[in-house]
Amino acid sequence: MVQKPQKMAESWSFLDTVESNFRPLVVIELAKGTKEETIEWFTKRIADKKADGGAQLLIKPLVTENGHENIYLVGASHLRLLLGAENVGLVKECNDNSMRTFTYSSRKTFKDFADDNHNFLTMAECQYIIKHELENLRAKNEKMIPGYPQAKLYPGKSIVRRLLTSGILVQIFPLHDREELKKLRHSWYGRVRVGYQPLDDIRCYFGETIALYFGFLEYFTFALIPMAVIGIPYYVFAWEDYDKYVMFATFNLLWSTVILEVWKRICAVLTYRWGTLLMKRQFEEPRPGFHGVLGINPVTGREEPVYSSIKRQLRIYLVSLPFVCLCLYFSLYVMMIYFDLEQWALDYHNENESNFSSLMLYVPSIIYAVVIEIMNRIYRYAAEFLTSWENHRLESSYQNHLILKVLVFNFLNCFASLFYIAFVLFDMKLLRQSLATLLITSQILNQFAESLLPYWLQKRHNKRMKKLTCSQKTDADLSLAEQVNMEKEMGTYLGTFDDYLELFLQFGYVSLFSCVYPLAAVFAVLNNITEIYSDALKMCRVYKRPFAEPTANIGVWQLAFETMSVISVITNCMLIGMSPQVDALFPDSKMDLVLTVAFIEHLLLAIKFIMAFVIPDKPRDIQMKLAKLEFESLEALKQQQMKLAAESLKE
Amino acid sequence: MVQKPQKMAESWSFLDTVESNFRPLVVIELAKGTKEETIEWFTKRIADKKADGGAQLLIKPLVTENGHENIYLVGASHLRLLLGAENVGLVKECNDNSMRTFTYSSRKTFKDFADDNHNFLTMAECQYIIKHELENLRAKNEKMIPGYPQAKLYPGKSIVRRLLTSGILVQIFPLHDREELKKLRHSWYGRVRVGYQPLDDIRCYFGETIALYFGFLEYFTFALIPMAVIGIPYYVFAWEDYDKYVMFATFNLLWSTVILEVWKRICAVLTYRWGTLLMKRQFEEPRPGFHGVLGINPVTGREEPVYSSIKRQLRIYLVSLPFVCLCLYFSLYVMMIYFDLEQWALDYHNENESNFSSLMLYVPSIIYAVVIEIMNRIYRYAAEFLTSWENHRLESSYQNHLILKVLVFNFLNCFASLFYIAFVLFDMKLLRQSLATLLITSQILNQFAESLLPYWLQKRHNKRMKKLTCSQKTDADLSLAEQVNMEKEMGTYLGTFDDYLELFLQFGYVSLFSCVYPLAAVFAVLNNITEIYSDALKMCRVYKRPFAEPTANIGVWQLAFETMSVISVITNCMLIGMSPQVDALFPDSKMDLVLTVAFIEHLLLAIKFIMAFVIPDKPRDIQMKLAKLEFESLEALKQQQMKLAAESLKE
Repeated sequence: MVQKPQKMAESWSFLDTVESNFRPLVVIELAKGTKEETIEWFTKRIADKKADGGAQLLIKPLVTENGHENIYLVGASHLRLLLGAENVGLVKECNDNSMRTFTYSSRKTFKDFADDNHNFLTMAECQYIIKHELENLRAKNEKMIPGYPQAKLYPGKSIVRRLLTSGILVQIFPLHDREELKKLRHSWYGRVRVGYQPLDDIRCYFGETIALYFGFLEYFTFALIPMAVIGIPYYVFAWEDYDKYVMFATFNLLWSTVILEVWKRICAVLTYRWGTLLMKRQFEEPRPGFHGVLGINPVTGREEPVYSSIKRQLRIYLVSLPFVCLCLYFSLYVMMIYFDLEQWALDYHNENESNFSSLMLYVPSIIYAVVIEIMNRIYRYAAEFLTSWENHRLESSYQNHLILKVLVFNFLNCFASLFYIAFVLFDMKLLRQSLATLLITSQILNQFAESLLPYWLQKRHNKRMKKLTCSQKTDADLSLAEQVNMEKEMGTYLGTFDDYLELFLQFGYVSLFSCVYPLAAVFAVLNNITEIYSDALKMCRVYKRPFAEPTANIGVWQLAFETMSVISVITNCMLIGMSPQVDALFPDSKMDLVLTVAFIEHLLLAIKFIMAFVIPDKPRDIQMKLAKLEFESLEALKQQQMKLAAESLKE
Repeated sequence: MVQKPQKMAESWSFLDTVESNFRPLVVIELAKGTKEETIEWFTKRIADKKADGGAQLLIKPLVTENGHENIYLVGASHLRLLLGAENVGLVKECNDNSMRTFTYSSRKTFKDFADDNHNFLTMAECQYIIKHELENLRAKNEKMIPGYPQAKLYPGKSIVRRLLTSGILVQIFPLHDREELKKLRHSWYGRVRVGYQPLDDIRCYFGETIALYFGFLEYFTFALIPMAVIGIPYYVFAWEDYDKYVMFATFNLLWSTVILEVWKRICAVLTYRWGTLLMKRQFEEPRPGFHGVLGINPVTGREEPVYSSIKRQLRIYLVSLPFVCLCLYFSLYVMMIYFDLEQWALDYHNENESNFSSLMLYVPSIIYAVVIEIMNRIYRYAAEFLTSWENHRLESSYQNHLILKVLVFNFLNCFASLFYIAFVLFDMKLLRQSLATLLITSQILNQFAESLLPYWLQKRHNKRMKKLTCSQKTDADLSLAEQVNMEKEMGTYLGTFDDYLELFLQFGYVSLFSCVYPLAAVFAVLNNITEIYSDALKMCRVYKRPFAEPTANIGVWQLAFETMSVISVITNCMLIGMSPQVDALFPDSKMDLVLTVAFIEHLLLAIKFIMAFVIPDKPRDIQMKLAKLEFESLEALKQQQMKLAAESLKE
């Protein structure tokens, strides 16, 4: 039971373990006016012993100057965290430099482990463990949340998820560590310097998913540099010869295959070091938004909401699919309006030739780029709504359907006009101009909308907050209560989806028409360098700290990038085939030209697939380490069976 | 220690378990003149207790009329076999119809288990277990095989493998079960009937690899029937319209994608039922032929032969690769000779027109088909020699390199002339004629060389054997000694490689040029029906019983078939584009024709990939069952951790 704030001293009494220095890790914000009995029940369940079905965590109300505001701080004893680490299957480095799944009984064999070393687990790991334990706090015999009869429970239902969906729990978020964050900020973007990002520090602070995104962003930027370097002379010397473009395109195509394959290897190295490559997949729970009538899940045999798969299929094929097609049609319609505008601007320029009119030539493209961005963002909401309405049981299936919807639309929306210009209008000059305008405008808009605008809003908000509290303290001097109050108002980082999507579209701009506009890679590199800084700023300054999320790879994005690189082989071969210079090589027969181009295209595709097949996905030393681990676990199993066999045969 | 045959009664005394009815499962044949001390040591190691590092199996010398011939029969007690089943990770059906990994402690929960039911494990499973135990009988402190100082041993080296490589052990093979075999033969091919093969019986008798081959052969034959049915009217009504060919080709391409995807699902159903879908992969030992200097294996940390990976790469790229290229060149050279011959036959026919000369037209194709077969077989030996010389450490890596070498050569050797006729000579009539001759000749040759010839040789050999023993007994009446003596002389079945290769090439003949020769599918179906019977005959009558080999899928062949179906999209689109009828549709511009064909080709390829992506590899109920198993094992782990955590927190 939770005591009123004035009785704080006694409020520790219910804690099983006496922890002299309670370290707050996670903040739970309950809705204002939540009933007392609900709070009491919830905090008791969190603090209850594991054996009694509780989470056995430490929980403490936050006391501010305005009194008790239904905000609670959650922590855990060191021992509890270590047991939780075993529970989530954390993989840590051993004394012999190998990576192993942590178990409490073998704790002494792990590097840097000591009973008094509270930094063995990083703060991000501790917060992940607490989140996992909270989410796995399940209803026993409760039929509903005490005080809220409409919030139904059934045995095994996650209490936190039900509290969230019924609005009693406003949010759960991990606390920032001001000291650590300051250090991280300094090493990440605090000083202007050329070099790598502190990926391991980012991983310790923000977790693997975010660190892997920044790792990919950095790698991708470095990988684009050769393309940018080769692209510059095309601009400087105004190379218009197609043989040079052909060279560039061929390099580009093979290069993009190589970089995607090499990324898999680098990703394996990173995630092996971070332990997530070896981490076992946890059994997936239904996603929070999933609803249905109570039934028996055939897999778990438990009573939980079930939703007919046929109903979901009907929703997907009869509503979502037609809606997506309609959106695609609308996007094409907008594109045609853009071409009308373009024609109008050209006519205007021809009639009244002036500086103003030549500037006007760029206006339609810029307007179109802005409209594309707006449409992408609106569609994004629609896609999220629809996918959520499709009522997928698992988060992964929800994500896959969402990503598919968004990718198809964004691809068409961004590139349809370029395809139209290239393969219907055959206007290479306009293609180059549109490509440049679209690329640069979308980059500027993105940087502004994603990082700078929220940063500015956040800064203004902070200032107002500080004025309200009438204090002129710096960040480091803030009391815990002030820090929590400030952070709970910050925006929530919604995951790496948008960031990867931006890179994906950029990759499209760079590779799809690379033989027409080699300078695209230069802009991409410039954008990515500032992107690293603005994304870092966004993570450290604008958003609440996100929960760490272990991951072994960039998932479906690898496939998306690879598909894009296959499509770019086709488009580039077509562009080269259409060029007048290549045309001139086959003066007699257009047939021969097309056949040659088709042959080269198939050859390039074959080389791509063979390269993807031949380059191993994991470096040799990682392969060896994985083989060693597998060998050891099989040996252990065999030993165990041998012992059993010997015993059985003796009887 | 093994007693001399005259003291047979006492020879049981060394057996740990008193087994009243010793059932011989596996035969071990030692070389004539093997030293007595070696035999004594080897049999003792086999019979020794597990705890003393032995295999704890039952071993008994075979006594024939001619006395003791260094042939031993190996069996095991029922208990020993059950423990071995746990050791190899056998998966069996439980009482609740789910498939689970067998453990001795949970034996009561398995279907049909009873302490006195000795048929719980099939004979093939028992033999597999014994083979596994024999191969895992490892040297302890022996530095060499007693009596053979040149046959070095080191701790952990498999004794049986060393005995095999040093020629002391001639062969190990499982015994046929005359009764079972008779039943199987009867239900498999004993009566003429239309229906499915008894795949489950085949699996029980020959193991999963062979049963899966027959399953694939049957499935593939059924899958070809629609193509054959659609192909027949083309022959009957002499349809020469290209629109009909286009229809056929399109159907063919999509159909071939569908059948390959559906096979994965059927394969999952079969192997789930057989338990191999769930079976954990065992850690791979070095293959028997692998040699090198003694060193420390970085993965296992054990002392064993190591061979530098760079040396192997050098052998592959400096010897094998040039050799393969040379063979490919030679194959093309032979092809050119064939075209000279073809030209000569045509000239001859034009000069002296007669029945004989028109028959002569087919002669070059037939000769070429025979030469192709011969070259394929010779190359096969060369490829085996080279791959073995490359000294791969693992059997799987050896197999992959061998399959790659053989596939590339066979593909070129069989199809190069057809590609040449189609895309260089543009002679559709000749293409159809060559395709028919090649297909039919190779089918006849294969059936003859693979099954009928060995069967005939075997039959003649058996007759001679029977005459020698002067008995006119039928198979069933043979004594154990006679049976062993007969079976040890039978040929060894070398695995499913050749059988799959034959199907792969047949698939090439059917799909690569399907729009030119729709009748190919008819011949393929006819061939496969007889192939099932002749392969079954081969398995039951010609060869020694092979050891069962658990497998979850057809492995690299799935990839090979899929690659073939991608190539066939390209060839068929090209053939259609070249046809005069399609040509006539684009009277004005050849460009438009080629572009249209290229567009359709890309569209078909895209549909293929999307279909492969969308069709799930496992049927929904298998997915559910697998999810259920995963859930249960995770739950069990969690329970265990919770208990541990509760205990640790109490302390």
